[in-house]
Amino acid sequence: MTLLYLDDFTPGRTFTTGTVTVTQDEIIAFAAQFDPQPFHLDPAAAKATFFQGLAASGWHTASLTMRLLIGSEMSPAGGLIGAGVDELTWLRPVRPGDTLRADSEILEVRPSRSRPTQGLVKARVMTLNQNEDPVQRFVTNLVVQARPVQPD
Amino acid sequence: MTLLYLDDFTPGRTFTTGTVTVTQDEIIAFAAQFDPQPFHLDPAAAKATFFQGLAASGWHTASLTMRLLIGSEMSPAGGLIGAGVDELTWLRPVRPGDTLRADSEILEVRPSRSRPTQGLVKARVMTLNQNEDPVQRFVTNLVVQARPVQPD
Repeated sequence: MTLLYLDDFTPGRTFTTGTVTVTQDEIIAFAAQFDPQPFHLDPAAAKATFFQGLAASGWHTASLTMRLLIGSEMSPAGGLIGAGVDELTWLRPVRPGDTLRADSEILEVRPSRSRPTQGLVKARVMTLNQNEDPVQRFVTNLVVQARPVQPD
Repeated sequence: MTLLYLDDFTPGRTFTTGTVTVTQDEIIAFAAQFDPQPFHLDPAAAKATFFQGLAASGWHTASLTMRLLIGSEMSPAGGLIGAGVDELTWLRPVRPGDTLRADSEILEVRPSRSRPTQGLVKARVMTLNQNEDPVQRFVTNLVVQARPVQPD
């Protein structure tokens, strides 16, 4: 895996990830810990809700997306450090057995004025299921190191 | 706990939550599953990183915030269903032993034109630590049911 510096990120560059399959047990375990609502916990009770069946917590989908990004080709030296995300949207429910991957595109690269050793990279990250249907979209703002200056 | 309908949400109304204390073991367990990077996994290795010590994954903080909101007074009938969040920002590291709570303020309420039985509630959710320092801020867009019409 090649570690990337700020100048490796150019607007329009794209990255993808491996995949992860989420099981019903994992959906329920995450929900029990962080988002204990019937539509994330109980397949039978979920039928009569907004989601019309068991669905993963949106925060579970976001966390799985992070797991997909770690170890992918989008690997800044210094780590994948988000200052925050804009426009995190859940587009469709994630169901038991769904297989997810994440496709990213670099939108903008801004060297820091005050700290020349780093900059901000804005990237759109789309999480897709096995049918190529988008389930989540966000725009992340990554703190990325500038390439160390080589001595003359 | 009183379940709330769309007309219970008015701009300016505030809510708070109970608290949760996050342990080092929990920070590491979450990171191992979803965000396996040295600054979230290994207190010694974390010292030389951007975070200068072990810090919770931002997605862990977001998930803990969800946990705080569930069961709080901000409880729409039909559940706490986010269509997405705007401007999710991590303001400070969350450290082992930190005790978090979340304060919310309703910003905007919009009945749905196409679906009169529901609407969107925009709320700012601020997560604070035991020193009252904000660690995370987001604006969430909740899908909230309108109060059922009573027969005449």
